[in-house]
This record gives sequence, C-alpha cells and structure tokens, in this order.
Amino acid sequence: MTSTETRDITPGKARERFRAGLSVPTAGWASGYAQANLIAVPADWAYDMLLFCQRNPKPCPVLDVTDAGAWTTPLAPGADLRTDLPRYRVWEHGELIDEPTDVLAHWRDDLVAFLIGCSFTFEGALAAAGVPLRHVEQGRNVSMYVTDRPCRPAGRLRGPMVVSMRPVPPAHLEAAIRESALLPAVHGSPVHCGDPAGLGIADLGEPDFGDPVEAEPDDIPVFWACGVTPQAAVTASRPPFALTHAPGRMFLTDARDEQYRVA
Amino acid sequence: MTSTETRDITPGKARERFRAGLSVPTAGWASGYAQANLIAVPADWAYDMLLFCQRNPKPCPVLDVTDAGAWTTPLAPGADLRTDLPRYRVWEHGELIDEPTDVLAHWRDDLVAFLIGCSFTFEGALAAAGVPLRHVEQGRNVSMYVTDRPCRPAGRLRGPMVVSMRPVPPAHLEAAIRESALLPAVHGSPVHCGDPAGLGIADLGEPDFGDPVEAEPDDIPVFWACGVTPQAAVTASRPPFALTHAPGRMFLTDARDEQYRVA
Repeated sequence: MTSTETRDITPGKARERFRAGLSVPTAGWASGYAQANLIAVPADWAYDMLLFCQRNPKPCPVLDVTDAGAWTTPLAPGADLRTDLPRYRVWEHGELIDEPTDVLAHWRDDLVAFLIGCSFTFEGALAAAGVPLRHVEQGRNVSMYVTDRPCRPAGRLRGPMVVSMRPVPPAHLEAAIRESALLPAVHGSPVHCGDPAGLGIADLGEPDFGDPVEAEPDDIPVFWACGVTPQAAVTASRPPFALTHAPGRMFLTDARDEQYRVA
Repeated sequence: MTSTETRDITPGKARERFRAGLSVPTAGWASGYAQANLIAVPADWAYDMLLFCQRNPKPCPVLDVTDAGAWTTPLAPGADLRTDLPRYRVWEHGELIDEPTDVLAHWRDDLVAFLIGCSFTFEGALAAAGVPLRHVEQGRNVSMYVTDRPCRPAGRLRGPMVVSMRPVPPAHLEAAIRESALLPAVHGSPVHCGDPAGLGIADLGEPDFGDPVEAEPDDIPVFWACGVTPQAAVTASRPPFALTHAPGRMFLTDARDEQYRVA
C-alpha cells in the first residue's frame, strides 16, 4: 500500500488487514483517528496498573479499561482486541516469550485490558501545523528509548519512563509543543527537548524500540512520554502474565483525534 | 476574615485554621492553589472507584490516590487528610450519618483516599480573564445540582453526574470556556450552557448542594462537571463505608493552579 492509501484507510479497514495477518508499524495510518497502546494484565494486577497509569499520566494516559475477560471496547465497536492489532507481545514473569499476530491462544478470562493514548494521534495535528514528521517521511517506525527517569511506583509496579523522539526543526518547535499540549490524553506536551543525555539516552542512533530516524542538521530532538512505558514496568516488575502490543504496532480506534483535544 | 485575607492566605495557614475547627466554603481561598474533592473508600472498593473516575474524567479527574491507610499526599506535604478539611461527610451503606469537622474517630486502616480536581481551581484563571464570579462576589458557596445524566458505571459504582453552575455574562462566555478547557484536571470545559432543563434541573433557585446564587438579567447559566459526583455514586451504589468532604468545603493543596494548565 502507498502512504496515501494507508493515510486514508478507515480504522475498520485497517483492523481487518491486521486481523488477516498484516504486521506493520501504524504511524501515518488512518489519519484523524486515535491510536492506542495495549496492555492486558490479570485482574488481580489491574488496580496496580490503573494506579500506575493515574500516577504517571504523561506516559500512561488511559483511554479505556475493559471489564475482566472482555475483548471489546466502546472506542471501536466490533473490534476484537485479541486479533485486530498488527502484532502483540506475550510476557511471563517479565520475560518476552512470544510476538504473535494474534493472542487467541494466550487470552485468559481474567485479563483486564488497558488502552493507553499514543503519540501517533497528535501527529495529524503536528502535520496540519506544518511540522515535518521525519519517521513518516522515511517510512520508518518512530524511535523509542528507555530513559533514566523513574515512574512513580504503584503497588507492585515500578519502572522507567519510555519516550518517543521526533527530530523537529527549530522553526517548528513552538507549534510541535503547542499542538501536542492540547492533546493531554495522547501524552500531551514533550517531556524534554534537546540533549538526549538529559534523559540518560546515550545514542539516538540506537533506539531501544522502533527504528533509527535520520535528522536534518538543525533538527532538535523532541521527546514525548510513550505508551511503551507499561512494557518497561512489566520487565522491571515481573507480573506473572501480560499481553501488550508490539512497539509502534498500535490498536486503531474509531475515536477521532479531535475528541481528545481540550480547546 | 475579609475576602482579601482569605484570598491571600497560604494553603498551609488555611489548613491550620480548618484543623482548628473553622468550617466554611473554600471558594476564593488561597488564590492560585489547587483545591480538591475528597472521597475515601475501603480498599476492596478502590478499584471500582478508580475505574469510575477513569470512565468519568470530567466529573472525576484524579489528582492523587493514597496507599491504603495513609492520610498524607504529595500534593500537600505535612497535611493530614483526616483533619485539614473544613468539614467532612461520613457515609454508611449510602446514608449520610455524620458531618464532623474531622474524621479521626471514623478513620480506618483500609481506607484509600482519592483527591479529585475541583472547579474552584479554575476560578483564578476565570477571574484573571475578567469573568465575574457571582458566588464569590456574594460570599456564597457555589450552586451544585444532581443532573439526569448518568455516569458510565464501573464495577459496583454507578450514579448521576453532579454539576456546579456559574452565571456568566454573554460577553465573557468564550473566555470562561477557553480558560477552563485548558485545565482538564480540574473538570475542564463546561458540560452544558443555557437551559437547565438540558440537564434535568428544574429550578436553579433550589440547588442540591451549596447556596442559590443571584444572576444578573443577561447571565447565561454555565454548568461544569463537579467533584461531588462520587458522593452521588455513594448514595446510588451504597458501598458499606465512605468518607468525603462536605460540598464546597475542599482540601487546599500546595499545588499551583498553573501546574494543571495544559498550554
């Protein structure tokens, strides 16, 4: 598919393709619709996870929480959270044990699924404001990094904040900050601009997740809190079981970006 | 105390007075500092309450959640949630059984306390933008009403949305909407403007909580979601036990209003 086709596809059609097995990063897909991170944990870990999200609202803004065992969400009527993402990760005791394209074989009746806002959602607003999106131009997944900034713990859950990074030309920095700030449900304003060492990131060329992205000489690296943060908490805190999306391969909702804009 | 004295008092000094027994509505107090609604429930109801808040973010934007039994919060170091509010309400099985000025005798080791954003917090921004605040001018508590709009249920919790109402002159309506929208953590933009029947409110002169407030002839009633909503959920859902603030008599935090402004 061309970038125009993926941009103009409806979320429902995109989910159909992912359900059929297509496994690609979703940046730039279904422009105008909110994308979401997924993490599902056993019910007896759900309070810790919800509290972790409440205490860390920039990396973990919650868009929806399912009732235990349910694989549906009002954010996308008819969608199946077990099959409709491009790729999943399966975790046992904090270890990644599988990366399948559906989790039908791994689903449990006690799983509570959290859908967490994704920065791909504000990229439409950034593009509309003239901010270039290097990773989309280059057909790559966004770069993501584990930082040295700890999240506020909640119950048994702790771990570092993960960020996504976009190189932004100085002339577009104000627009990038302003437009993302108006969408706090999808991470809001950046957590850091400039020197990656400020977040304990040694080398932008070696992201922990996603792809390295080429910057123009004057670009400033801009870092937003990232919904992969719960996966870092799974690694650090070792709950007995968890399912997540694979980084950059998100759940496409039917909710419009605009719905999350505060003003 | 004069209105200037209450406006300029620090939150810490205000909490001292409330701890000593002063019981007054806190609108207009400690200008520039965030105020919060309180609801504390037994730990086995905490997940339902946190999920209820997540599913109803306009009435129930969570600012902090304590660990079970703790009466402290990072929002106001040194404060005691059991004594530092002007007045409390004590609930058993959905019935109001007491309205004391402290809850030392009612506190339990399994209580989880939720601090929820309060619309008094955006009144500073409204005033700075020139929006008159009739209830503050008139030295009254804000008017609050139970609406016919149901909250999205969560587990065992359900109930109607409660709103606060401020009469706003038409020329100031845009500023009132814009300024409050930028503070989603303290209820954000209004949920309704104009005819109270749109929310099932029969008579603005008979609020369910707080005081009636005099409007000027051209004023438009503007309704914001209200942090008394969890108390309506307590009434409707009858958890075995709950502690809350008394409507309009809030917890004064040391957090600056600005901290919750998104842009």
